[in-house]
Amino acid sequence: MDRKMNFASDYTKGAHPNIINRLNETNMLATVGYGADEICESARNRIRKACGVENAEVEFLVGGTQTNAVMIDALLQSYQGVIAAETGHIEVHEAGAIEASGHKVITLPQHLGKLLPEEVEKYLEDFFSDANYEHMVIPGAVYISQPTEYGTLYSEAELQSLRNICDKYDLALYVDGARLAYALAADENDVSLQALARLTDAFYIGGTKCGAMFGEAVVVPNSAKLKHLFTTIKQHGALLAKGRLLGIQFDELFKDDLYMKIGEPAVVAANKIRQALDEIGYRQYFTAPTNQIFIIMENSLLDKLAKEVEYGFWEKYDESHTVIRLATDWGNTKDEVDALIAVLKAVHN
Amino acid sequence: MDRKMNFASDYTKGAHPNIINRLNETNMLATVGYGADEICESARNRIRKACGVENAEVEFLVGGTQTNAVMIDALLQSYQGVIAAETGHIEVHEAGAIEASGHKVITLPQHLGKLLPEEVEKYLEDFFSDANYEHMVIPGAVYISQPTEYGTLYSEAELQSLRNICDKYDLALYVDGARLAYALAADENDVSLQALARLTDAFYIGGTKCGAMFGEAVVVPNSAKLKHLFTTIKQHGALLAKGRLLGIQFDELFKDDLYMKIGEPAVVAANKIRQALDEIGYRQYFTAPTNQIFIIMENSLLDKLAKEVEYGFWEKYDESHTVIRLATDWGNTKDEVDALIAVLKAVHN
Amino acid sequence: MDRKMNFASDYTKGAHPNIINRLNETNMLATVGYGADEICESARNRIRKACGVENAEVEFLVGGTQTNAVMIDALLQSYQGVIAAETGHIEVHEAGAIEASGHKVITLPQHLGKLLPEEVEKYLEDFFSDANYEHMVIPGAVYISQPTEYGTLYSEAELQSLRNICDKYDLALYVDGARLAYALAADENDVSLQALARLTDAFYIGGTKCGAMFGEAVVVPNSAKLKHLFTTIKQHGALLAKGRLLGIQFDELFKDDLYMKIGEPAVVAANKIRQALDEIGYRQYFTAPTNQIFIIMENSLLDKLAKEVEYGFWEKYDESHTVIRLATDWGNTKDEVDALIAVLKAVHN
Amino acid sequence: MDRKMNFASDYTKGAHPNIINRLNETNMLATVGYGADEICESARNRIRKACGVENAEVEFLVGGTQTNAVMIDALLQSYQGVIAAETGHIEVHEAGAIEASGHKVITLPQHLGKLLPEEVEKYLEDFFSDANYEHMVIPGAVYISQPTEYGTLYSEAELQSLRNICDKYDLALYVDGARLAYALAADENDVSLQALARLTDAFYIGGTKCGAMFGEAVVVPNSAKLKHLFTTIKQHGALLAKGRLLGIQFDELFKDDLYMKIGEPAVVAANKIRQALDEIGYRQYFTAPTNQIFIIMENSLLDKLAKEVEYGFWEKYDESHTVIRLATDWGNTKDEVDALIAVLKAVHN
Repeated sequence: MDRKMNFASDYTKGAHPNIINRLNETNMLATVGYGADEICESARNRIRKACGVENAEVEFLVGGTQTNAVMIDALLQSYQGVIAAETGHIEVHEAGAIEASGHKVITLPQHLGKLLPEEVEKYLEDFFSDANYEHMVIPGAVYISQPTEYGTLYSEAELQSLRNICDKYDLALYVDGARLAYALAADENDVSLQALARLTDAFYIGGTKCGAMFGEAVVVPNSAKLKHLFTTIKQHGALLAKGRLLGIQFDELFKDDLYMKIGEPAVVAANKIRQALDEIGYRQYFTAPTNQIFIIMENSLLDKLAKEVEYGFWEKYDESHTVIRLATDWGNTKDEVDALIAVLKAVHN
Repeated sequence: MDRKMNFASDYTKGAHPNIINRLNETNMLATVGYGADEICESARNRIRKACGVENAEVEFLVGGTQTNAVMIDALLQSYQGVIAAETGHIEVHEAGAIEASGHKVITLPQHLGKLLPEEVEKYLEDFFSDANYEHMVIPGAVYISQPTEYGTLYSEAELQSLRNICDKYDLALYVDGARLAYALAADENDVSLQALARLTDAFYIGGTKCGAMFGEAVVVPNSAKLKHLFTTIKQHGALLAKGRLLGIQFDELFKDDLYMKIGEPAVVAANKIRQALDEIGYRQYFTAPTNQIFIIMENSLLDKLAKEVEYGFWEKYDESHTVIRLATDWGNTKDEVDALIAVLKAVHN
Repeated sequence: MDRKMNFASDYTKGAHPNIINRLNETNMLATVGYGADEICESARNRIRKACGVENAEVEFLVGGTQTNAVMIDALLQSYQGVIAAETGHIEVHEAGAIEASGHKVITLPQHLGKLLPEEVEKYLEDFFSDANYEHMVIPGAVYISQPTEYGTLYSEAELQSLRNICDKYDLALYVDGARLAYALAADENDVSLQALARLTDAFYIGGTKCGAMFGEAVVVPNSAKLKHLFTTIKQHGALLAKGRLLGIQFDELFKDDLYMKIGEPAVVAANKIRQALDEIGYRQYFTAPTNQIFIIMENSLLDKLAKEVEYGFWEKYDESHTVIRLATDWGNTKDEVDALIAVLKAVHN
Repeated sequence: MDRKMNFASDYTKGAHPNIINRLNETNMLATVGYGADEICESARNRIRKACGVENAEVEFLVGGTQTNAVMIDALLQSYQGVIAAETGHIEVHEAGAIEASGHKVITLPQHLGKLLPEEVEKYLEDFFSDANYEHMVIPGAVYISQPTEYGTLYSEAELQSLRNICDKYDLALYVDGARLAYALAADENDVSLQALARLTDAFYIGGTKCGAMFGEAVVVPNSAKLKHLFTTIKQHGALLAKGRLLGIQFDELFKDDLYMKIGEPAVVAANKIRQALDEIGYRQYFTAPTNQIFIIMENSLLDKLAKEVEYGFWEKYDESHTVIRLATDWGNTKDEVDALIAVLKAVHN
């Protein structure tokens, strides 16, 4: 089959070769289910070490929407809701998974996909000083994504601010790391895994978009905080019977610090594409430091581009322009990127 | 690592070689997500053909508890519950996943894991003739598993009876086929995929326990009945981003009728073990026609057996005996089975 | 006890004398429960007649939040959400009752508490033309209130537009009539009970704020649409055991068209107060045609006013001003209103 | 209207005269809503005093199913279920209200409506010693009713046993007191309000069936245990806007110990009827010490009885007999009871 080059998303391919090899090697091994096997235990220990928290609870789940639904349900009481940016994945593209477990998503304005700590604080201050606040959903957690849905990053200082605010108002802080490898590989990033472990109540390390075939690793730094998380996972239909499949993938991703480097090709590619876009004369909607690229395209050029490249529609810009998104990934080669740039040049002229 | 032989369950291994090979071949292919790719479409068509229903809706999910929760939620209105045997997987071992989406599991007595059609009918007759029935959960679906949690089988005549009863009282009939390949391979089985498609509102074809790495294929014969099933799947966190991983597995399982044969080694092995147990002098709790074997063991023998074989605890039988379960699977070899029988002999003497 | 005059809300008092009298008369009568008694049947028939729909289903519930939660749950499938103005009661002041039954509230901008039909249509058009809409909560109903939380009114033409849009996109239209009596008594209102019955899938006639001790009457014009609504009510804990208490109240409210007139004293009072505010020199935030009055008060005057009158805080206007709300009700007398106006004069000077 | 005498249930009438009088007196009083008024505060204090717990949280709700749903939701984490007798009201006659908030009802055998402490303990011991217990719903609370649905009573010693078991396994103990006044008035009862406050995590004092027009009073002895119960009540649609209506009723019920005596007429009546049944020659299904009477009637007599008396169907006994239930209430007079006995005599002959 002759295929167009595909920059539509970062989950179009299978898995990193190390993972495929290990899946092959272990295929006929018979192990106990549900993550109780020794490969899962090895993977957990590697992650604990990478996060610098010896006793962290680490659980493996299959996908991102699932992980968000499980963890937010686990972190909240039934009368609580979760604060998110209006562009947060849980608000927009999870088909109401949070509400389906009974919790409201409380939205605040987004700033290139980010919550502003001061706006979170203002909201909480106003909320709890409202004489009738007990008639409303009590905010119980803050949800952010790192990188955000716009590819932007929180700084460690911003995370620290959110942590302080959460402490002040007794909220949990939860980070969706679906694309975390691309944050870790970005030049401007100053938030390490250890910082996430220090500053959050729970976060997840994305596998699906970051070199795994599928899978996400949840980290709960203070494991005493969430009782019976295993049962919550099972109740959400999120417990993989052959848990070792996830163990294998994260064991490989955290062997020799692979996860710290796996996002680099994507970020290098994205930076190169962003520079080429400037040089060619494209307008970028904004520039993010990770693996997503947003271009304001003249509508007349869209079909021409679509003949050669799979890309993502982002939003209508104005009557004659559209914002499109290109996403690079861990598996992109120099040749692919050069080919894309050549097409972008040809389309522009 | 030197491992004990493992007959603890039928989900201890990876995937059938055809599947592993195809995953290897397609690994770096970039495809669209969420099951919209051509491999998924091919798999869907193979399944539709095997079921004899050209327009069936076929959806791929990751695991069994998840599939049950999604489908029962999709089949019920919010005021309805689902009838199940008191030993049904949804009642016992799914951590309340059905209740978590708001639905009661209404239990009826089990008979080696099966519901008796006449008992279902009696329940429904009594229910709807109760003057106060509207104060109670309205039964909206019947859940059965084929084979059951006890490895037993419904006959086509029994399924037809359940269908008639469901029609009479306007209930949906749903079949959990987590181990369906072992039913299809059993000598006494007379329920074909076509019969399931003709007699049920929805059923799933189990992959995880039947040769896939993971995954279950839901079949909704009359696709007009369930609107927006895709969104329900997404809402439950059950939509796999790289949907093609599931497509690949079911495309292989339904190529050249592999699924119809894949359970045979397990059933042959189980039959051989059951015969050997009789010959050696073990008492079987009951004999099922599929891949599960239930032995009433003297407690004094359990440790001896455990040194050589991983088995499953089923239930306490009396003060001095325990029921254990052995499960064979699609990947068992003659050598493994002979080795197990040798151990069973040695333990008994 | 010497009390301040109370204009804080329209549910500060008990019930209209006719209701109290009937409760007294019937107190020791023994009747069947759950609304199956003849008084409830009489009330249902009076309401059906007033709405011009002979076969409407009419159910009595206890309070507004409860009624909204029950009806929206009944109108939606599990994968659907409900559209509401960002100021809608279900979005803000119901503690997440809608989400607790699994449904997202999808908010659109408010215009003095109202949804604009064209904005609803634009939202639905964009939604269903989004290639990924099945990843999002499917809109299944539109929630509006008449009068709105701001005391404003939809015209019959606007309701007709919303009806048409709902038909086009297969949504239900639901109207929260917590204060419906004050709409029916307003000069500018052109939406009759018959129009509500013709244009909506369900609406409720508010009792609690409109002369009843408590209670709301749900009207489902096409009763075939909602099966087992009784069971849904019971499941929400919303079925009053002594249903006749509600029947008595609505039987009285719909005897001799009382409900059509019961809001008049409140509207007359509110109009008089609004005129007085203009004359005294107060700034009104906006003027609504029903029983709510919104004043932009200098903060320095608030304490002075609070000494004499219970009023409601609405929102901060700017650093030195606050919007307060006064609500009149069915029980206000000319003397009370004159006394309030005298205080408002005194405070202003 | 000429009415049959009505012994079908204990919620057929309005309210005790003291309550009706107070509702009349206070009708046009304007008070703040949602239970923040001074009458509610007075009622709360009377209840705290009667229970001997100065700082108990007391909340007023409208009905029993609602109260059970709210409190069980408040007491459980999302992964937990509630243990109940198979005849418990929450299991049978609440239309799935517990499951609708996501929680499984875990049923154990009933013994005339009661749980046996030793069976609860055995269940918990087995549960937590099951290696796979985390795949199942974790029991988080025990639900009992006092009196039970069969009119039977727990002794203080039995309650103490349940308390000890709950402490051992970290479960909450919750008591449904829908008919509590009839327990308090029964000769054999040794469980005081103070004992309930000492031994439970929460219980409710039934009003609807015990002399109130409607309403139940929840008592949480250790108020620190349940945070934001008010919001949970609101979220369930269970917060009465005119909260004072409930305050008035419980203020009257706990003035001069009325509630301690209000059940007496019912128990006296029931005892007299039970004695008469024996004398006449009726077979009683069993005899309970409170206000419910269960008779095994020949089917041929049912119509004859139905001409004179409203009674409740309980269950089919055998082909030719039916168990019926008669319930007495706080409002029964000696004349009514004598009239009933006369009819029972006439029917029997």
